[in-house]
Amino acid sequence: MSNKFLRNIRTMSNSAKPSFTPNKYFTLNNSKDVWSLTNETAAKAATNAQNKDRELINLGQGFFSYSPPAFAIKEIQKAVEIPLVNQYSPTRGRPRLINSLIDLYSPFYKKQLTPENVLVTTGANEGILSCLMGIINPGDEVIVFEPFFDQYIPNIELCGGKVVYVPINPPKELDNRVTKGTEWTVDFDEFTRAITPKTKAVIINTPHNPIGKVFTREELTKLGNICVENNVIIIADEVYEHLYFVDEFPRIATLSEEIGQLTLSVGSAGKSFAATGWRIGWVVSQNPDLLQYASKAHTRICFASPSPIQEACSYSIDHALKIDYFENMRQEYVKKFKIFTSVFDELGLPYTIPEGSYFVLADFSKVKIPDSYQFPEEIMSKGKDFRISNWLINELGVVAIPPTEFYIPEHEHAAENLLRFAVCKDDEYLEKAVERLRLLKEYI
Amino acid sequence: MSNKFLRNIRTMSNSAKPSFTPNKYFTLNNSKDVWSLTNETAAKAATNAQNKDRELINLGQGFFSYSPPAFAIKEIQKAVEIPLVNQYSPTRGRPRLINSLIDLYSPFYKKQLTPENVLVTTGANEGILSCLMGIINPGDEVIVFEPFFDQYIPNIELCGGKVVYVPINPPKELDNRVTKGTEWTVDFDEFTRAITPKTKAVIINTPHNPIGKVFTREELTKLGNICVENNVIIIADEVYEHLYFVDEFPRIATLSEEIGQLTLSVGSAGKSFAATGWRIGWVVSQNPDLLQYASKAHTRICFASPSPIQEACSYSIDHALKIDYFENMRQEYVKKFKIFTSVFDELGLPYTIPEGSYFVLADFSKVKIPDSYQFPEEIMSKGKDFRISNWLINELGVVAIPPTEFYIPEHEHAAENLLRFAVCKDDEYLEKAVERLRLLKEYI
Repeated sequence: MSNKFLRNIRTMSNSAKPSFTPNKYFTLNNSKDVWSLTNETAAKAATNAQNKDRELINLGQGFFSYSPPAFAIKEIQKAVEIPLVNQYSPTRGRPRLINSLIDLYSPFYKKQLTPENVLVTTGANEGILSCLMGIINPGDEVIVFEPFFDQYIPNIELCGGKVVYVPINPPKELDNRVTKGTEWTVDFDEFTRAITPKTKAVIINTPHNPIGKVFTREELTKLGNICVENNVIIIADEVYEHLYFVDEFPRIATLSEEIGQLTLSVGSAGKSFAATGWRIGWVVSQNPDLLQYASKAHTRICFASPSPIQEACSYSIDHALKIDYFENMRQEYVKKFKIFTSVFDELGLPYTIPEGSYFVLADFSKVKIPDSYQFPEEIMSKGKDFRISNWLINELGVVAIPPTEFYIPEHEHAAENLLRFAVCKDDEYLEKAVERLRLLKEYI
Repeated sequence: MSNKFLRNIRTMSNSAKPSFTPNKYFTLNNSKDVWSLTNETAAKAATNAQNKDRELINLGQGFFSYSPPAFAIKEIQKAVEIPLVNQYSPTRGRPRLINSLIDLYSPFYKKQLTPENVLVTTGANEGILSCLMGIINPGDEVIVFEPFFDQYIPNIELCGGKVVYVPINPPKELDNRVTKGTEWTVDFDEFTRAITPKTKAVIINTPHNPIGKVFTREELTKLGNICVENNVIIIADEVYEHLYFVDEFPRIATLSEEIGQLTLSVGSAGKSFAATGWRIGWVVSQNPDLLQYASKAHTRICFASPSPIQEACSYSIDHALKIDYFENMRQEYVKKFKIFTSVFDELGLPYTIPEGSYFVLADFSKVKIPDSYQFPEEIMSKGKDFRISNWLINELGVVAIPPTEFYIPEHEHAAENLLRFAVCKDDEYLEKAVERLRLLKEYI
């Protein structure tokens, strides 16, 4: 900066601040989100007495510790060299990426999809918001299953919708033995009772974050048929679609023609290609009349999505299909889970065996945190898991997410002893995590 | 696709489609947007009898015909090679880009900005939506000046706001002589009368799309003071901030401390670095209490913005400041406008001399379109400029935007003889456009 500028510098005046009423949604919901809270705790803890001579092991937010595949990186590098690939894309998505998505999804649907079945969005988050904004009128109800991905709630409520919660019931003895995803169950009578004349949609997340459950064909057929009977739109958040470790990943949209006509399925390049910072997602639907409303909303929210990254995603999908990339990724993740969960087996800490996604939900009931341990004030009103997480970050230098954030306060007791660990890290890092978590032995 | 898959292919069933009520906003506002309409007309016209042996000259949508600067391209190529630069960025923006924006804007504000004054968004479009969603409660009024950038309207209305229109009055004899941006004027008494107890904000776009007007210090001071008196938040859409061809570009946020405390200023990497497909924008405000609401909305809309592109934008801003890039760009645009407007001088077609932005608004009153000319049905309910635009695309092979799209129907007569031309094209292309537009001579 020039000297002239420095001479002219003014300190902030103390004049009266203007008063204004922001969107009341944000003043009513003003507690810090779990991501910011955990990241800030981790940043502070990185240099505390316990951690200052060791690496902080971050299995909190679900970002990858490793690069997207080289073929994807190279394609971005090529794409930006073409002048027009740096300019606006069509709001619906670049034709090349739309074609790749048609090739990727048509076999699952057992029919030839067309460009009218596909919408490219600026990440799956904006994809889900586009679906909701496209269909919600104020007062409409949207059913979500608990635990839920936290963004669903503001996305529904900011569109004027009302959230109705239906639990995914945890297995019995969750705190006492290793459990399976199939043991986390939805009571479909309870789901049916939650439907009212105002119910516009339900969001179903499979493979599920944070449980790791892959909903079975039977469960999804039940859910889908109830939706057909009651004309409820299904938003299927399938961003972990390529990460399943059971025999099949059933896609609700493909289970019957009638279910398909009511379903918007959301996918993510970030989750599929280890590139959470690329912000490309998509919505696929067999019903173009339904999908067009998500498309209209997307046009107004982001107008269009980043062009060079769309080009790279197109190439990456085409190439992934050729080299069996997704199957190889699944094999790598089987290994990652094996490395990581070994420490819980060693320690005798119960967890749910992941059937899909890249998360492990582990139960810390048996871990005794010293009674005298001092926690920061801002987490004292939150679930017990926030205290476990805080302690684990500060004392062991391991970051995990407290999952009561994915419950409403009335139900958070179901998860108050759980922590969510993300294993989308390289194997060496996971080995280090295992070694560090062995220190828990002293506290069990 | 495998043979098995092809054998299994099903045609779309004719079973009853489900009925659903989408967001009524989109059923009430279902006419095709001007961008899709113009692009589709252009695509069809490209191979018609008149155009099939010549290049279609596209001065419609404001995308650049040339590449972003090499230094920006190279930086994306470098950024994607760093593993973590492909992962989530902080929702508020990458610290490196925030610092670059602080360096870019602090001199204008004559104070040292801090990270609390800056929010990175996924394009300026999402930036403006974030501002609106952060502050609007249902029923709040937002004032926009006519002509307006079309996205403002759905962005306000989708947040539950009500749009109040105040005209920018055109110069007298717009159809008869070359005019200046300063001759397009706001009646500030009319603006004051438009303010009610429900007025939450005003959007002011300067340099202005499509007029090319740069609002003067006097105009902005008047506007700002009225907003301060009435506690109206100012959203300053300054995406063309580096493209001004008058002595100065006054920034409303810097005109007084009180005005600054009420202002959210929106900028765009796409417009600044000839990269409309990169989708990085930002919001700067001297009032962190106000900006935090835009930030909270952005977190829920897009969560975070593309990471490698943020890195490239950071480097590009730093480098641009070193090499006087923005001043050089202005000089290049002075030349572009000189090349392009020469044809209107030759033909005697009136236009408004651009003081800023990359648009020319030209008056086609003197152009006689044959009475017998057949127009497609879908534009017959729209302003006369849609017919002029359609004729120009089909008969001369030149694409321009009909600006009545930027007016409400009651006021569109003000622009019914105008067309908007984008000159963000290389000089050679503009020379070709001039040559083609000379064909208008036959019709004058």
